[in-house]
Amino acid sequence: MSVMLNEFLDVPNVVREVITRNKKVIAEIAEEFKRRGITNITTVARGTSDNAATYFKYIVEAIGHIIVSKFTPSITTVYGAKVNLHNNMLLAVSQSGMSTDTLMVAQNAKDTGAMTVAVTNDPNSPLAKLCDYHVYLAAGQEQSVGATKTFLAQLSSMYLLSNALSPSPAKMNIAQLPPILENFIQESKKGIQDFAESLKDINNFIILTRGLTQAVASELSLKMMTTCYKLSRPFSTCDFMHGPISIVEEGTPVIILAPDSEFTEEFVAMTTRLSLLGANVYSFTDIQEIQNMSKKSFKMLPCRGTNSPFLYSMAIELFVVYMAQSLGINPDTPRNAKKITITK
Amino acid sequence: MSVMLNEFLDVPNVVREVITRNKKVIAEIAEEFKRRGITNITTVARGTSDNAATYFKYIVEAIGHIIVSKFTPSITTVYGAKVNLHNNMLLAVSQSGMSTDTLMVAQNAKDTGAMTVAVTNDPNSPLAKLCDYHVYLAAGQEQSVGATKTFLAQLSSMYLLSNALSPSPAKMNIAQLPPILENFIQESKKGIQDFAESLKDINNFIILTRGLTQAVASELSLKMMTTCYKLSRPFSTCDFMHGPISIVEEGTPVIILAPDSEFTEEFVAMTTRLSLLGANVYSFTDIQEIQNMSKKSFKMLPCRGTNSPFLYSMAIELFVVYMAQSLGINPDTPRNAKKITITK
Repeated sequence: MSVMLNEFLDVPNVVREVITRNKKVIAEIAEEFKRRGITNITTVARGTSDNAATYFKYIVEAIGHIIVSKFTPSITTVYGAKVNLHNNMLLAVSQSGMSTDTLMVAQNAKDTGAMTVAVTNDPNSPLAKLCDYHVYLAAGQEQSVGATKTFLAQLSSMYLLSNALSPSPAKMNIAQLPPILENFIQESKKGIQDFAESLKDINNFIILTRGLTQAVASELSLKMMTTCYKLSRPFSTCDFMHGPISIVEEGTPVIILAPDSEFTEEFVAMTTRLSLLGANVYSFTDIQEIQNMSKKSFKMLPCRGTNSPFLYSMAIELFVVYMAQSLGINPDTPRNAKKITITK
Repeated sequence: MSVMLNEFLDVPNVVREVITRNKKVIAEIAEEFKRRGITNITTVARGTSDNAATYFKYIVEAIGHIIVSKFTPSITTVYGAKVNLHNNMLLAVSQSGMSTDTLMVAQNAKDTGAMTVAVTNDPNSPLAKLCDYHVYLAAGQEQSVGATKTFLAQLSSMYLLSNALSPSPAKMNIAQLPPILENFIQESKKGIQDFAESLKDINNFIILTRGLTQAVASELSLKMMTTCYKLSRPFSTCDFMHGPISIVEEGTPVIILAPDSEFTEEFVAMTTRLSLLGANVYSFTDIQEIQNMSKKSFKMLPCRGTNSPFLYSMAIELFVVYMAQSLGINPDTPRNAKKITITK
């Protein structure tokens, strides 16, 4: 078994740890945020951490009604602009807490009067020490190059934080999540492995979804590139309809992540259209109609609302590692890439 | 000659119109923005308009030091959240001014106390009428389905607006832009046509750039999908290095937009690395070293800083329309797509 796979299987415990360890700091962050009357949040992150930030953006906007921007690091690191982040909370997300660019943006935020929060897997990292508050991912050391445990740990902390910042918190009991994930792994592991192996020879995927699972589609795409060496591009079904759908022809491979949700009707309409255009649709879904129209489908356990990104994340992480294995790639050490990339 | 090509050739006149017609309203917007002490800007847009919003985000952050977020329409249209945009200016960009989703987000912005600005090509559109201010693109009617004149018209208005909002405006004299664009079209049209034809049989491109031309890379990718039916994915060189570079192997096609700029060294380093990995690099550049390392290269006229997105946009627009023509596709009516997409 690869180190990467082994690390994924430990995710339910990591989620448990994140919930327990950060209760206090997250309450403190929410109190300070409200006390200061802050209206806007800015995130800074790259890669997997940026995908987690996308989830945060969706959920804190949807349940917290707080607008979130994404900071473009080069504005600080190359153009040297002192962007005014007064009235903002900066959320800096970095597994290592060592990225130079994220650090420079956090320093700019402090200098211009922002409240600053770091989310890292190392309480002794420079980023954790620089920011006013630190949310600890407690994922243990990741040995494989591709992020494994951190993505779901980040999603968990983002969920907790969104909920705490929200004037009317969501009803989900996140403490129920670890057993749900454990059950999902047990029930679905073998099926996902078969699904991944059956798709291993296909290249150049379109990946579609919409809403809360958008971050999961981005992470699937990133991991397919880094771990399986396959080009892919994620779209929201809506953005895809708005032009790029022109590329679909007989045999175009499309993966759709389609949880039964506010978007069920739209997912069904899109899958119908894709089928008529001759696309090969591969789906992760619990919607029967979409399963029927798919060339191949992995049947997800039903999961609603804020739960769905967690189960879909677990599914795509396992999918990618099994696909890599079936391609004969060691997912622990992808070619051309390093664990910590120091960029500016 | 296709309608689309004909429309591109009219761009210098459109840019002239945008500058003349919007002087007054842009000064008024800037005055109101400063009077209210607004700290954050939020954009809402889709497709080409969203790529123009990306340019706006870069430039207003770099020269204006004002942070910009991008509004995710589904948060309002599907999740029904009343996102608090007090302390924000909403910039709603839509060629037609008719998109339901953009309208709903603008209404939410008004309801929560934001200052609102519409950028459209129709002063009588619902969006133009709903917002506090209207910036008029004055591009005339676009007859081809893919946006042609609007993208550069949008960039021009975004530049004017960024400059007006900035405490210390940039030095560029935008009135010099139309003759520069005219000269560029004359000098480069034939070369771009040859370049496009020589690449027409290649599929599944990676597109790289960084900084102010990021929006241009996104637009190139969007147009390649909608007009040439080719999958492509844009990255910043930095994000690409951070993982996705794993996919590069012998023969991987990469287009790099590399203006001589703050990023020259990084572009050269990236191109060197790509060459060593065996990628086929195709470049739009005025950097001699990158031309030398490219399998094919289109030599750009030198252009610095805020000018470069305009010339590179003109180049990629012509590139795409010539590529479509050489593929035997009528770029005026791409398959599967409509001119106005009503989405929520």
